[in-house]
Amino acid sequence: MTQESPGADHQNFVGEDVLRGYIADLSNWGRWGEDDILGALNLVGPEEVLRAVATVESGRTISCTLPLDQSGPQRGFLRNNPRNVMVATGTDHVSGAQDELPAGLGPAHGFGRSDDMLIVPNQAGTAWDALSHVFWEGQMWNGRSASLVSSHGAATNGIEGYAGKMIMRGVLLDVARSKQVDALEPGYAITVEDLEGAAEFGGVEVIKGDAVLVRTGHLWARRGEWGDFAGGPTPGLSVHTAPWLHGKDVAAVATDTWALEVRPSELGVFQPLHIIALVHIGLALGEIFDLDELASACAELNRYQFLLAAPTLPITGASGSPTAVIAVL
Amino acid sequence: MTQESPGADHQNFVGEDVLRGYIADLSNWGRWGEDDILGALNLVGPEEVLRAVATVESGRTISCTLPLDQSGPQRGFLRNNPRNVMVATGTDHVSGAQDELPAGLGPAHGFGRSDDMLIVPNQAGTAWDALSHVFWEGQMWNGRSASLVSSHGAATNGIEGYAGKMIMRGVLLDVARSKQVDALEPGYAITVEDLEGAAEFGGVEVIKGDAVLVRTGHLWARRGEWGDFAGGPTPGLSVHTAPWLHGKDVAAVATDTWALEVRPSELGVFQPLHIIALVHIGLALGEIFDLDELASACAELNRYQFLLAAPTLPITGASGSPTAVIAVL
Amino acid sequence: MTQESPGADHQNFVGEDVLRGYIADLSNWGRWGEDDILGALNLVGPEEVLRAVATVESGRTISCTLPLDQSGPQRGFLRNNPRNVMVATGTDHVSGAQDELPAGLGPAHGFGRSDDMLIVPNQAGTAWDALSHVFWEGQMWNGRSASLVSSHGAATNGIEGYAGKMIMRGVLLDVARSKQVDALEPGYAITVEDLEGAAEFGGVEVIKGDAVLVRTGHLWARRGEWGDFAGGPTPGLSVHTAPWLHGKDVAAVATDTWALEVRPSELGVFQPLHIIALVHIGLALGEIFDLDELASACAELNRYQFLLAAPTLPITGASGSPTAVIAVL
Amino acid sequence: MTQESPGADHQNFVGEDVLRGYIADLSNWGRWGEDDILGALNLVGPEEVLRAVATVESGRTISCTLPLDQSGPQRGFLRNNPRNVMVATGTDHVSGAQDELPAGLGPAHGFGRSDDMLIVPNQAGTAWDALSHVFWEGQMWNGRSASLVSSHGAATNGIEGYAGKMIMRGVLLDVARSKQVDALEPGYAITVEDLEGAAEFGGVEVIKGDAVLVRTGHLWARRGEWGDFAGGPTPGLSVHTAPWLHGKDVAAVATDTWALEVRPSELGVFQPLHIIALVHIGLALGEIFDLDELASACAELNRYQFLLAAPTLPITGASGSPTAVIAVL
Repeated sequence: MTQESPGADHQNFVGEDVLRGYIADLSNWGRWGEDDILGALNLVGPEEVLRAVATVESGRTISCTLPLDQSGPQRGFLRNNPRNVMVATGTDHVSGAQDELPAGLGPAHGFGRSDDMLIVPNQAGTAWDALSHVFWEGQMWNGRSASLVSSHGAATNGIEGYAGKMIMRGVLLDVARSKQVDALEPGYAITVEDLEGAAEFGGVEVIKGDAVLVRTGHLWARRGEWGDFAGGPTPGLSVHTAPWLHGKDVAAVATDTWALEVRPSELGVFQPLHIIALVHIGLALGEIFDLDELASACAELNRYQFLLAAPTLPITGASGSPTAVIAVL
Repeated sequence: MTQESPGADHQNFVGEDVLRGYIADLSNWGRWGEDDILGALNLVGPEEVLRAVATVESGRTISCTLPLDQSGPQRGFLRNNPRNVMVATGTDHVSGAQDELPAGLGPAHGFGRSDDMLIVPNQAGTAWDALSHVFWEGQMWNGRSASLVSSHGAATNGIEGYAGKMIMRGVLLDVARSKQVDALEPGYAITVEDLEGAAEFGGVEVIKGDAVLVRTGHLWARRGEWGDFAGGPTPGLSVHTAPWLHGKDVAAVATDTWALEVRPSELGVFQPLHIIALVHIGLALGEIFDLDELASACAELNRYQFLLAAPTLPITGASGSPTAVIAVL
Repeated sequence: MTQESPGADHQNFVGEDVLRGYIADLSNWGRWGEDDILGALNLVGPEEVLRAVATVESGRTISCTLPLDQSGPQRGFLRNNPRNVMVATGTDHVSGAQDELPAGLGPAHGFGRSDDMLIVPNQAGTAWDALSHVFWEGQMWNGRSASLVSSHGAATNGIEGYAGKMIMRGVLLDVARSKQVDALEPGYAITVEDLEGAAEFGGVEVIKGDAVLVRTGHLWARRGEWGDFAGGPTPGLSVHTAPWLHGKDVAAVATDTWALEVRPSELGVFQPLHIIALVHIGLALGEIFDLDELASACAELNRYQFLLAAPTLPITGASGSPTAVIAVL
Repeated sequence: MTQESPGADHQNFVGEDVLRGYIADLSNWGRWGEDDILGALNLVGPEEVLRAVATVESGRTISCTLPLDQSGPQRGFLRNNPRNVMVATGTDHVSGAQDELPAGLGPAHGFGRSDDMLIVPNQAGTAWDALSHVFWEGQMWNGRSASLVSSHGAATNGIEGYAGKMIMRGVLLDVARSKQVDALEPGYAITVEDLEGAAEFGGVEVIKGDAVLVRTGHLWARRGEWGDFAGGPTPGLSVHTAPWLHGKDVAAVATDTWALEVRPSELGVFQPLHIIALVHIGLALGEIFDLDELASACAELNRYQFLLAAPTLPITGASGSPTAVIAVL
């Protein structure tokens, strides 16, 4: 092992040539300059934002974010569920514990307050990956060294680079519904044909700068009784959808699963689509999007495009961010 | 003291009649039904969303959220600044500490990852208050008992009630610029005339369902050298703007200060405008919005209305939520 | 319900008379003065400390504390397991991320460091309860109001009151071994006869100021495969051991279980022995003590008394504290 | 830079030869075997424990640990102060929020509880360093690679290795009092003569296996008004005391300062005494010990030796641990 290429001496794995082939063919490193930290979000300019806004017809808004609480899908294998802790409560207020204001501010005169603090693994629930989240042989997006991501956080490619972004056209590809199943099975690899079938089903065409939301039904199938939803086998995108995503100039992709891509992986390496799509194409990747209510609304309105507002918190140096996703139809 | 009316026996304070008068005149309790948990956000329906979307002209997007990190304005008086902690790093990857995948998944073959966890007081930075955040004499929004907000969180009125909302027309009232100052002084109480002057300066009219963003310049004046920005004297809305906010059927108000309202308070009780506006009018209140870049853009484009996307994370039972605020001009 | 007596109107439960009888008979409220915050630890004075020290014969030291990490017994039902997060690492150092010291201190010249932060529910593992941990009808130790324990912590009876204490004679009552079983069954209520049998088995007499460590074998039976160890049915002390504990003037009691007392409870109220022993007798209660290695040593040396050093961290206002327990034989 | 020797190409600093000389002369690497993770604590065997126990005369116990709360010395430069957050309160209980037990356990019948969670940088207050805390040119105690300390924690040399230890003879060297000052000045380097003077003042001789507690008075001088106590200039041990500490076969050293050693450093590298004493001698190092009450007691009793019980929490892989320090005189 050398520092430049961690694990390079172990590189013989099934499908290594496939992975390296896709990387060679699809890499966007340098496409938007040496200094770029946006990746495929560069594909969303003012024109694309205007087009996204123009999709709104009904004024209806739908949340696609799971509750942030202890009922979430995590079970400690990968991450813990969010925990919100109260540091001031209404019970304090009614019990008299707030009758004096803090800091010598005198009597409360009937004023009371609650306050709290959130402890949240950034990718425990509905979240976007940062471009610093995955490495391949010592490098991350745009060819930067993984060693720039230390305990201090990401010196570059952190999620704060996405600030002010994530206003784009969203397209729902409801693969489950288009294939007339409630949910795809764990291990099912979604193909390009599946994606195109779902687009046709929805009467939409995926174009430059889109956020493609792919619904597998897996979250629907596991909601509340999560089991191995987080970290276990899951339906998801096939590694072979990478050329399609790249060719369409998609800006972002998200699914209703923990992994985005199918698990177990089709190649002998962990999350090969992340290696291609996040590290080399620079795609914004979203996971654990709750697409069920949106899917119902799209079906009802028979319209599968919308304005997507799914901004990331500018957490300096972070590898990802929880996101409050709203679709405006 | 009785449980129903905490501190009620201490109620003689300067301006008590003013406060009680405003509460009597302006309360929206029951206006949207007994079960309502949205408050003034009810004023934003599909029509208002469509109107908000229609304000977009340039496709330019601007973030109004402070970075979430240790450089923030908190100093422990009220809250701590957000801390993001890394649980997997690129330095681990390049040093070989990730050569084996966890959970018996075998060799990494060059794959690496970073991951992290955020510890964030929900209102440490750019944030919205929940309707469970402030109490008056044992009650919160819609007449509910403050005792419903325990260490388990808010059983009702929590921030999760705002899920899918906060897509609305934003109007910037740049009071500082309209008064030709860099920043209002701490202790300056913004009047209705100031608000109307800023609206006229911006060529906008505040109407039903708007989110009114009021810029004092105070954040600009303190950025980086925060001093007592959080918790100290601050310019802000006068308690006497309450009838105007109510009369305009505004849905949300936010400022570039920690308190929204002027501090020290104009009445002898802590944060009287919160008591009126949050507890009784049910207004969505936002604080520590970073409005400087937005103000520059508005000035440049000479347009002070825009689509505001400022969704809250659905943190179950929380008293507030950090928010990634985006203005789409 | 009144504030003074929460839930008092629901007080008809099986065994209510038994509970109230023990409380009436055994209460130590006022025994050590109105201001007392030590409870039964008052029974450990210099003389008892000297006696404890005098038990040491071999100089052997044994830890009775579970590791603080994610492998612990918690499963989120009651609490989460401790999580230690690194904020500086050796991988940072070897990867060059520490080549510059922070705060402008210049080049590191080869110096490196690791650092970390612990997030620990105070009673997630081996821990002592504070006298503020349990309430009965609105009151806690020494007749103080439960309302003194707010979101700010315990204004009195907090674990910081135990600072400098927990140096005492320890006596191991290995009930499992004395009854010739590996482990008592969940639901088994340890009787006074069991305790006396174990004392006889160990050749020790329980006397004033002792810390009595009761071994059920339940931790041994579940170690690593915890199942419902935390929060589920468990062997433990019978509520009817309360008079014996009180009569012996024991200062502290601890077990190798999560609840100390038997679960399900023998009376129709949750944890009645806590109500008697912690709230009214003022006993120091310890839980999830790992007594297996100690039990082996005691059996080997045929000596069941030792110096116990199990100090609490003076966490201001806390309801309990993790403790590093050491037996010196 | 190479991975084996981080920063090695920057190695020209003032006093480099001194540092390298001490390392060459004093290193204990291999002294207790290849697998050793105890370092100088190996010097405390049963015989030393018995000798420690034999020092107890009065049965008096004194805590030397600062409160763990927000009033501590940290100011975010190095670390934050501990924060304890309540997750169940007495105000909940008295307000009726606990009238139903969780998990379907039915009515509370008057039972109530408080519970909490601690967020603590392990070395924010009174604490011991682990042997994984400091590195020198890519290595830590016993010649192990610093790369073994990743975001997962220390794979070896972590603080859990100290479990069951820290029962030893303590010797107070009250340098301040022996030099007839309230407190040594920041920047003052304590010499071997100072240490021997304080030993003579106290009528004690430092011998094999001792824990040497060195009091500078600096904590006394700054208590409550901490200023730059944490991270700033401080009195402390001179790097030139290393041979004395090694020669005496001391097992542990602690001071009432944040750095143990004098700051600014006497050599042109950060914390050279840590590099020698922790990395190479394997000494247990303690910091921010609150020695004032102990010093008063020692002066009063005219006895400067005692049983020290200062166990570490076995936090798996941690770089240090808060410790509840008790001196038994």
